[in-house]
Amino acid sequence: MKAEIIAVGTELLLGHTINSDAAHVGRALSALGIDVYHSCVVGDNPHRLEEVLREGLERSDLLITTGGLGPTEDDLTKETVAAVLEMPLEEHADSLVRLKEYFGTRPMGPNQYKQVLLPRGSRALPNRIGTAPGCYARRADGRAVAMLPGPPRELLPMLHEQLVPLLAEQTQACICSHMIRTFAQGEGDAALRLAELTGRANPSTATYATDGEMFVRVTAKAQDAAAAEALAAPVVARVQELLGDVVYGVDVDNLESVVVPLLMQRGQSVATAESCTGGLLAKRLTDVPGASAVFQTGLVTYANSTKTRLLGVPEAMLARVGAVSEEVARHMASAVRQRSGSHWGLGITGVAGPDGGTAEKPVGLVYIALADDRRTWLRVMRPQGRYMGRAWTRHRAASHALDMLRRALLGLPVEMTATARGRF
Amino acid sequence: MKAEIIAVGTELLLGHTINSDAAHVGRALSALGIDVYHSCVVGDNPHRLEEVLREGLERSDLLITTGGLGPTEDDLTKETVAAVLEMPLEEHADSLVRLKEYFGTRPMGPNQYKQVLLPRGSRALPNRIGTAPGCYARRADGRAVAMLPGPPRELLPMLHEQLVPLLAEQTQACICSHMIRTFAQGEGDAALRLAELTGRANPSTATYATDGEMFVRVTAKAQDAAAAEALAAPVVARVQELLGDVVYGVDVDNLESVVVPLLMQRGQSVATAESCTGGLLAKRLTDVPGASAVFQTGLVTYANSTKTRLLGVPEAMLARVGAVSEEVARHMASAVRQRSGSHWGLGITGVAGPDGGTAEKPVGLVYIALADDRRTWLRVMRPQGRYMGRAWTRHRAASHALDMLRRALLGLPVEMTATARGRF
Repeated sequence: MKAEIIAVGTELLLGHTINSDAAHVGRALSALGIDVYHSCVVGDNPHRLEEVLREGLERSDLLITTGGLGPTEDDLTKETVAAVLEMPLEEHADSLVRLKEYFGTRPMGPNQYKQVLLPRGSRALPNRIGTAPGCYARRADGRAVAMLPGPPRELLPMLHEQLVPLLAEQTQACICSHMIRTFAQGEGDAALRLAELTGRANPSTATYATDGEMFVRVTAKAQDAAAAEALAAPVVARVQELLGDVVYGVDVDNLESVVVPLLMQRGQSVATAESCTGGLLAKRLTDVPGASAVFQTGLVTYANSTKTRLLGVPEAMLARVGAVSEEVARHMASAVRQRSGSHWGLGITGVAGPDGGTAEKPVGLVYIALADDRRTWLRVMRPQGRYMGRAWTRHRAASHALDMLRRALLGLPVEMTATARGRF
Repeated sequence: MKAEIIAVGTELLLGHTINSDAAHVGRALSALGIDVYHSCVVGDNPHRLEEVLREGLERSDLLITTGGLGPTEDDLTKETVAAVLEMPLEEHADSLVRLKEYFGTRPMGPNQYKQVLLPRGSRALPNRIGTAPGCYARRADGRAVAMLPGPPRELLPMLHEQLVPLLAEQTQACICSHMIRTFAQGEGDAALRLAELTGRANPSTATYATDGEMFVRVTAKAQDAAAAEALAAPVVARVQELLGDVVYGVDVDNLESVVVPLLMQRGQSVATAESCTGGLLAKRLTDVPGASAVFQTGLVTYANSTKTRLLGVPEAMLARVGAVSEEVARHMASAVRQRSGSHWGLGITGVAGPDGGTAEKPVGLVYIALADDRRTWLRVMRPQGRYMGRAWTRHRAASHALDMLRRALLGLPVEMTATARGRF
């Protein structure tokens, strides 16, 4: 089965909104073994949308549109699709009931009603979150258009709970895809290590770099899930073998979603003391549901006075070596561990920038320390002439802290000289 | 001038990567007054890329590709563009020098070299961050293809520091665009309030909803920047008039980037005590450069014991009303303010979910309190039967805290009944 993704919205062409919908839809389709060769963006312009719909219906079995289902005058997707498919719009009773429920006692604006007009004979896809139902309209010749709302938090439940099961009935081939995530591994080097695999088509092996992390995706296609999995499994194992302990997880989202379960398994806890990351490390740990079992205390000691008051960092030490120093990072990690009664302590202090850098303490310099009851470990991020920006520096520093804890929990070497570019 | 955006990469079609590059490029082009009617994604497939390039060169003056410039075998953009433009690849001396500098003492893999091969007669766009230079190749008939790298942190500096100035020389028309950001304002209601403006073409006025926030973009096109600005200014003012004090800023990124300067102007500081948001509020405040002037202390009291130890929340209170309660939120805000010696204190406690909800304290219920030296204010987020997920609930709760502080700093009413859907 061949499908195309058509994202509707002038704000996407102008770049005011990032087109994450196409990614969500593309991932769902590839998981179903549905081929996607075309993905495009159309503005809120019925004529161009009509062009794209007609062109797509010529060459593909399924078109999935995102956006343009809402109450505003710009929202023209359903009207245009109905015209192209020659399935005139009519009121969808259940959707109208749901819309009225949604507004309850709150006033419902006159422009809301058009949302419940769907192409005759189409199948409504109820919207669990917002007001605009989606729908699946199938033409007599079997070619179909599925319309999904633009806001990701409305699109995602509708896509996974309603459209995917509907499409799964219609597809044979099955795809299984695994993602191997690494930290502190450059992509160029990985490409060389994985050369024996990257040439093969099925399973395919490809490397991607995002946020200074590199991951490898292994994708296998077969008749059913079990066969696809059987194809993929040995390749996934081989990738881990070739890359070694820089691999922190398979089919995981990020370092925190690996570290929190590791702590849970050991019944251990971690406390955080953050300066330049300003709470980002605590935020990432608590992004993981159930983190409360392993994380009780986080301190954001953004000012020197706070470092002294909450962590007992000696004023003399701050005066002698400065807040951004190895000594202070080690002290922060040990003190927060001890004072919170946690097994592990993490301390981060650095210059996130863009300002505040000096000759010997440049913007991008960050010290990260990990402490247990016996010792402390340290990593230093050095900008090496290229400052990657405040957000990247903070994210990277928090990632190093998580990676240090991961490696300590697994009994792997913890310390390394980290550059702010994350290459080694 | 008409341009098209062509994003290259199978990972984009499969949805493994979100196509943020197209948004960055689209925004830059519209700011230059360059029209973008087509934006598409092509896999790592030279034949389909060739099709799209030929089609684009038929109807547009400029094509901008993103991705496919790297060292791996999948990176085929330059080869394909060179063939289509009939400008054969040749070694670019300066780029080779830069590449060698980049690797310095580190070993340079054999696959790195191909990155410095550029179409003959094209203009190299040096890569400040990564290894792959971009380039701008202009054919004899004036039609051009600009090639940018895929990773956003490489693309952004190249786009804004090199390609945009280069294109600015070639364009006449100038666009000015302003974004009016609101909090606690529904889009449907805004569309009605702004009806008198949304019909007009120049300046155009459009509403967008993201992350439960609604913003309005006013875009004016004219001969020069001053004329465009003169067109836009009165419409921007009218939008603010029509929407009122839910508008928290014009051309700002988010609430935190408004709150931190407001505190700076008043020489005041804020301290945070977070439970369910786990550091997200502190993280967002410290996302703003210079936040250290107004934020010294943040506490993540994720466990009840930590609430008692660090904030003196009475165990009796926790036993009586529970950690997720109005009383505890108010106590957290007051205590962190007092103990940190800050002007303002913010306290957040709630059930972020997905687990931990009960009948009377459902997942999504969050209490947010603001304290000064005289009183405390409170907002309550209630899921109203629709749980929006952990990340959204946490982000929303932190946004309410920032909006409460914003409104208090401006002397506006602070309290409101907030629903977790952010409609009022």
